[in-house]
Amino acid sequence: MQFLSDNVAAVHPAVWDAMRAADDAQPPYDGDAMSQGLDARFTELFGREAAVLWVATGTAANCLALATLCPPHGGVVCHREAHIEVDEGGAPGFYLHGAKLLLAEGEGAKLTPAAVRAVVDPIRDDVHQVQPHALSVTQASEYGRAYRPAELVALGETARARGLGFHVDGARFANAAAFLGCSPAEAAGPCDALSFGFVKNGGLTAEAIVFFRPDLADVARYRRKRAGHLQSKGRFLAAQIAAMLDGDIWLANARHANAAAAEIGQACGERLMHPVEANELFVRLTGAERETLRGQGFGFYDWGSDAARFVTAWNTREADAKALAQAIAGL
Amino acid sequence: MQFLSDNVAAVHPAVWDAMRAADDAQPPYDGDAMSQGLDARFTELFGREAAVLWVATGTAANCLALATLCPPHGGVVCHREAHIEVDEGGAPGFYLHGAKLLLAEGEGAKLTPAAVRAVVDPIRDDVHQVQPHALSVTQASEYGRAYRPAELVALGETARARGLGFHVDGARFANAAAFLGCSPAEAAGPCDALSFGFVKNGGLTAEAIVFFRPDLADVARYRRKRAGHLQSKGRFLAAQIAAMLDGDIWLANARHANAAAAEIGQACGERLMHPVEANELFVRLTGAERETLRGQGFGFYDWGSDAARFVTAWNTREADAKALAQAIAGL
Amino acid sequence: MQFLSDNVAAVHPAVWDAMRAADDAQPPYDGDAMSQGLDARFTELFGREAAVLWVATGTAANCLALATLCPPHGGVVCHREAHIEVDEGGAPGFYLHGAKLLLAEGEGAKLTPAAVRAVVDPIRDDVHQVQPHALSVTQASEYGRAYRPAELVALGETARARGLGFHVDGARFANAAAFLGCSPAEAAGPCDALSFGFVKNGGLTAEAIVFFRPDLADVARYRRKRAGHLQSKGRFLAAQIAAMLDGDIWLANARHANAAAAEIGQACGERLMHPVEANELFVRLTGAERETLRGQGFGFYDWGSDAARFVTAWNTREADAKALAQAIAGL
Amino acid sequence: MQFLSDNVAAVHPAVWDAMRAADDAQPPYDGDAMSQGLDARFTELFGREAAVLWVATGTAANCLALATLCPPHGGVVCHREAHIEVDEGGAPGFYLHGAKLLLAEGEGAKLTPAAVRAVVDPIRDDVHQVQPHALSVTQASEYGRAYRPAELVALGETARARGLGFHVDGARFANAAAFLGCSPAEAAGPCDALSFGFVKNGGLTAEAIVFFRPDLADVARYRRKRAGHLQSKGRFLAAQIAAMLDGDIWLANARHANAAAAEIGQACGERLMHPVEANELFVRLTGAERETLRGQGFGFYDWGSDAARFVTAWNTREADAKALAQAIAGL
Repeated sequence: MQFLSDNVAAVHPAVWDAMRAADDAQPPYDGDAMSQGLDARFTELFGREAAVLWVATGTAANCLALATLCPPHGGVVCHREAHIEVDEGGAPGFYLHGAKLLLAEGEGAKLTPAAVRAVVDPIRDDVHQVQPHALSVTQASEYGRAYRPAELVALGETARARGLGFHVDGARFANAAAFLGCSPAEAAGPCDALSFGFVKNGGLTAEAIVFFRPDLADVARYRRKRAGHLQSKGRFLAAQIAAMLDGDIWLANARHANAAAAEIGQACGERLMHPVEANELFVRLTGAERETLRGQGFGFYDWGSDAARFVTAWNTREADAKALAQAIAGL
Repeated sequence: MQFLSDNVAAVHPAVWDAMRAADDAQPPYDGDAMSQGLDARFTELFGREAAVLWVATGTAANCLALATLCPPHGGVVCHREAHIEVDEGGAPGFYLHGAKLLLAEGEGAKLTPAAVRAVVDPIRDDVHQVQPHALSVTQASEYGRAYRPAELVALGETARARGLGFHVDGARFANAAAFLGCSPAEAAGPCDALSFGFVKNGGLTAEAIVFFRPDLADVARYRRKRAGHLQSKGRFLAAQIAAMLDGDIWLANARHANAAAAEIGQACGERLMHPVEANELFVRLTGAERETLRGQGFGFYDWGSDAARFVTAWNTREADAKALAQAIAGL
Repeated sequence: MQFLSDNVAAVHPAVWDAMRAADDAQPPYDGDAMSQGLDARFTELFGREAAVLWVATGTAANCLALATLCPPHGGVVCHREAHIEVDEGGAPGFYLHGAKLLLAEGEGAKLTPAAVRAVVDPIRDDVHQVQPHALSVTQASEYGRAYRPAELVALGETARARGLGFHVDGARFANAAAFLGCSPAEAAGPCDALSFGFVKNGGLTAEAIVFFRPDLADVARYRRKRAGHLQSKGRFLAAQIAAMLDGDIWLANARHANAAAAEIGQACGERLMHPVEANELFVRLTGAERETLRGQGFGFYDWGSDAARFVTAWNTREADAKALAQAIAGL
Repeated sequence: MQFLSDNVAAVHPAVWDAMRAADDAQPPYDGDAMSQGLDARFTELFGREAAVLWVATGTAANCLALATLCPPHGGVVCHREAHIEVDEGGAPGFYLHGAKLLLAEGEGAKLTPAAVRAVVDPIRDDVHQVQPHALSVTQASEYGRAYRPAELVALGETARARGLGFHVDGARFANAAAFLGCSPAEAAGPCDALSFGFVKNGGLTAEAIVFFRPDLADVARYRRKRAGHLQSKGRFLAAQIAAMLDGDIWLANARHANAAAAEIGQACGERLMHPVEANELFVRLTGAERETLRGQGFGFYDWGSDAARFVTAWNTREADAKALAQAIAGL
């Protein structure tokens, strides 16, 4: 009964099938038909012209996207607890050649226009200070919170007004979209680039960088190769993504994970540190309580000394979720 | 009847099986049992202490390895036609933070101690010139030539005498080892780091960086994450590599490809631009002759205006190789 | 009556004289006798073996020093208000190839062992988080506070215990040393590298990077050239530094500036935001009060909306300092 | 009787005077009146809108200029013997974040449109190869050859046709302009950025980057600070440049140096490896002949084993030049 992370979840059967079906040789790299078809797939999905590159990891997706939006001497506004700041081993510094992350505050690891301005406004417009060039938000956020479409629109306006490129880290974009029940376009907001995650949601090795400005994709293609992320058998990555889009498996998987999280969340009541909107739960639990739960067979990470993080996945068994809910309720 | 490149070849069934068998959740990244077991596997294979990291591409393998051997202000001696120089989109410049490739000459894209010294010796030992810090050779070379064990030993001595780290790009290391018939250790020579390729030889998305100095691996682990190459479901990469090592599939696959190339090579006679030692053939063919071959259903790349490159793979059908051999003989 | 900044102060006559005396051709770059003599000069001054490089700016000095102490994938602990963090236009990101500044808190822009540990201890020792490799403190601090020798010893012990290189940004090292009245070695503490500033203290274009580990200087020499900071007529930079060391002009100049600051500080009483230890004053003044002072001919920068910063220099006239003291007292 | 290099020549008296006259405090960095006036000075000189930044070295000037013309994933076409390739310690790799120098051939270290195309045309327009983004030529070239205005126009057309930014390294631009006798604009050609050297020609620590596209200067200003090249007492650099422009001292100095070189060149006859057009001479001389000259008191560098390089400067004494000419003639 594992709730450690969705990042190790099994691969969805449809993904396996699509990969096997892609075994026949095709032009290398992204010259295969499925890779070439991704632009059209995402253009249809978002109702905006999209240019799409696959990569193997969310870190690569985020950093390649940001590198198209911010020059080496610039800065990227993000939340103090953003994944790019705390969990990517300094990858933004590498990919952006030393550009700086400019840290903003916000409840639930979410940013607001005011939070962005609080970072940007005090920066003197002179060469001694790193100037902001981009904004990055995470949908769903690092605490499992979803930006509402209107919030993204407002952030997009702030970004545009300040001349900032706008990036969305969507490692769990599917969970946010499933929660919001809106269109993918609304869930992504008026961003320039979206890291659309599939690995946590049933994929194996493929994430999509969705550029809503084709000129950015043209640059990112060179940067992807330069970063060693252009795989020669790229057809297998494209196949994963295409399989997840077929019949909206990506949404169904996310809904499943969200539902499991919601059920557990119900049982947590006041223990919840953040409302449960996606597939992550941050739950106040004493050391003794955590020990009890582990004794009952539940796997999860500690979150500081007085809490725990539970993550559900596309393949979390309903029985496991129920069991965890009951166990927490029974503490 | 495709001889375009082994880099698009189908995935070996044992690799598929191993991946499917790895579907159950494990600790993320490289915390799974199979990833953790790679050091021991390669230590046994090479008879030297090895520390091993998987990555998705040969470019990432080469550049992460080189970045441990050469500081940003240094240089890496390599052949003028080395893959890292001509075909990696400037990835060494990215990963090594602007370090320079110092280009040497040599027949068959192979280097000799004299060729290395011809580059290194004229460099003034002052700050105005980029100082060499590493040597990189390709086994088998970009023209399908294999370094003999004694040649590698000599290069290793040259490297050590000049204080250069020693890297081997083994995108087709298996083909070289199969041709040489020696031990893997002899085929790798006294290098500090080996990019051991599996993708071209029946793998899907996994290459191994084999460090023979554990201190280098300790650095490379941070650099791999920083480059977005630490996949969360790393067990699937480790599984591919382990499957290829099991029962020496890697060698069997390479022998098959080499045999097909040898058969075709026999038919080429004087047309061969380079002796056929691995699985690549560079064949003098006029435009008309190439058209004839293509008309007969053979796929391959032009090599300049008067030649063609044919590459065999682990799954090249014997009938196809025979057919190509006959077709060339019949020109 | 300018108190804007010491960074524009006139050049000391002895510096001009030394430069004119250096006009005759000498070997280029740092091959001249005076450049070559700097190691010995600083070794004598600090009573520790020192290897010294001149550069034109404090930013270059700081970043070249730090680049020898921290790899591209590492981090440097510094104060949240350190000059390298807020006022160098992202130069550390450039010189350290994307390494990260890890921000610590502390009164008066000074760090303590506890403040360093508060940053370092929570960093998980895994590849997802940037690992600390160096510590940088500013002597005197950005608020004009001087580290006492014992404080530096304690910080040095913390650094050593955590395996951190130790750098001191001494843009106003002279002012700190003059205030402390201790030996230069005690004022620098057990650091590995010191950016020893001369430009603010009567120099023209020369700062010294003093390495107390010669191996670091050997690397920095290549990095300096690579950064375009190896001037061909380097003798003129060495001459400035040598002139400032002769007869301890550097100390006399700093004492003069400190004395002027102390006199003004006396008049500020409760208005002082920080004790005056070097040559900077941060003084609570309303907008109306600042207007009054400017109307009386005093030049200075606002410090936020309710304060002002005054900086004295080696050539601040005593009458000007007295006048400012009286003007503030009379508000 | 030194002919080692102009890079150590004494400073012109007018430069000293201008610096002393600039001693009074001014706004820091480039906020002083003289720095602010440089744009107008160079706009007038070139008859094109110019935006100008001072820096301390030619390496910084070249690399800051190139960094505005070529992204990290791109390449810069230059001569195989260009200063940026062979003598700047890898600075382009640092400033351009790993961009690549693409080496072209050409007599006298000069490039032609055909030479540029020979490098650019074979580059496949795919992500595996570094794409050219800029062209850099040296005026006068590393062998003291001057591009004629028509040659620069042709190179500019080639650059424009290929979408390449166009940079001129003018470390000895004055010598070229003096030789050509044309307008500065003609001597610079239709370039986007010119590194206009003053240090070798009587300056102390100031070179000018002349941007003929103001948008590039806007970027370079941030990059200059980020590289630690924004000196706080920038008025002293601006003063040097202004002094050299006043009354065309820069041209007079160069004419003097060129005349001295021409006189020596006359005496060299068949010994000359390159026509003497600026202030450098490359002269075939046996080891014994060089020994003879050194015995007569002449200082110069060996150029390989069978030649020597002589460089004249703005302050080369006519008697010394005559003496050298006679000594060579008398060999």
